[in-house]
Amino acid sequence: MKPPKSKPQGIEDSSFKIIDNEAGEHGFDSNKWQIIRRMIHTSADFEYIETVRFHKKAIAAGIKALKKGCSIFTDTNMAKAGIRNRAECFIKDDDVVKIASANNLTRAEVAVDKAVGLMDHGMDQSIYVIGNAPTALLHLIDLVKEGKATPALIVGFPVGFVNAAESKHDLIKMDYPYISNIGRKGGSNIAASVVNALIILAERR
Amino acid sequence: MKPPKSKPQGIEDSSFKIIDNEAGEHGFDSNKWQIIRRMIHTSADFEYIETVRFHKKAIAAGIKALKKGCSIFTDTNMAKAGIRNRAECFIKDDDVVKIASANNLTRAEVAVDKAVGLMDHGMDQSIYVIGNAPTALLHLIDLVKEGKATPALIVGFPVGFVNAAESKHDLIKMDYPYISNIGRKGGSNIAASVVNALIILAERR
Repeated sequence: MKPPKSKPQGIEDSSFKIIDNEAGEHGFDSNKWQIIRRMIHTSADFEYIETVRFHKKAIAAGIKALKKGCSIFTDTNMAKAGIRNRAECFIKDDDVVKIASANNLTRAEVAVDKAVGLMDHGMDQSIYVIGNAPTALLHLIDLVKEGKATPALIVGFPVGFVNAAESKHDLIKMDYPYISNIGRKGGSNIAASVVNALIILAERR
Repeated sequence: MKPPKSKPQGIEDSSFKIIDNEAGEHGFDSNKWQIIRRMIHTSADFEYIETVRFHKKAIAAGIKALKKGCSIFTDTNMAKAGIRNRAECFIKDDDVVKIASANNLTRAEVAVDKAVGLMDHGMDQSIYVIGNAPTALLHLIDLVKEGKATPALIVGFPVGFVNAAESKHDLIKMDYPYISNIGRKGGSNIAASVVNALIILAERR
């Protein structure tokens, strides 16, 4: 006999059943659907079914990195707080604040440089998670194009009205492992839900 | 001459201008609009214009409590991480985890009891912020009805498919200071944005 479900597990299971029912036919494979379903679970927003975008190598790259115990960097402390595994966020670090202020940069973009600097073997064991700042995503894209940053996966969900959609458009044009979406929506909660879904997929392998 | 705007401030100002333009005529007073605009800023979701609900005393109660340096309790570490001021979240505390597990409760609802227990002068100097767990909101509503909890303001934005809309429906029926919304949407990011808007309003008084 299986042990009875805990109350939180019961709530999550019921939620997933409702999402499955209301989503109907969607054509996503099981791995992609695990991720999208968790995005909907965290936002109650079915629009992500239409707007999510996966690079063809993204899920395999993310799972492989997580199974090796990769570093996870986030642009916000909210995303960090929402991720099940240990993650790093440098946005409030003294050196980041100082450099950002002196150079009129956002702290989120300076934090990208700090992460790249720490991963001196090329960041290839890391997942970079952006839930808020288009400036951070645009900077990371530049570093990747220049070969200066090589994260295993970019989880890119900046939200908002100034360059959020544009930064994700640039990301999605790249032939590089990413999970992202089109449009203005996104957020630290969405980005964290994607990473959590990957963590659960990795645990099941 | 005014000092030049920082890059982050410039981005926020531009975002707010875009939101103002696209929202058009809305009929909200200035204080309410400051709050709703920040909800849209954090989610890129204009639907909150239609779904947000304010108790008539909510904004004044929130500002008054914040100006007195009130405690802020959250149901998630994501909401805590997103709030500018110091906030408390008990969801990972050993005693909360133990009681929840032993009684098949969610940790979020046990954390409500811990907050109420700490505020032995009646919680009237606190703001309770719920961005995720309907169970926590339903429990808090019960305690308020029984006179056992008296927060200055409830910021209630549970999200999801099991009792999120229902718990907010119960909150909105109460004659008690709340800021909330109807429907399934919400989240820790939305809840934090509401508190941050109140903090900014309080600082300007």
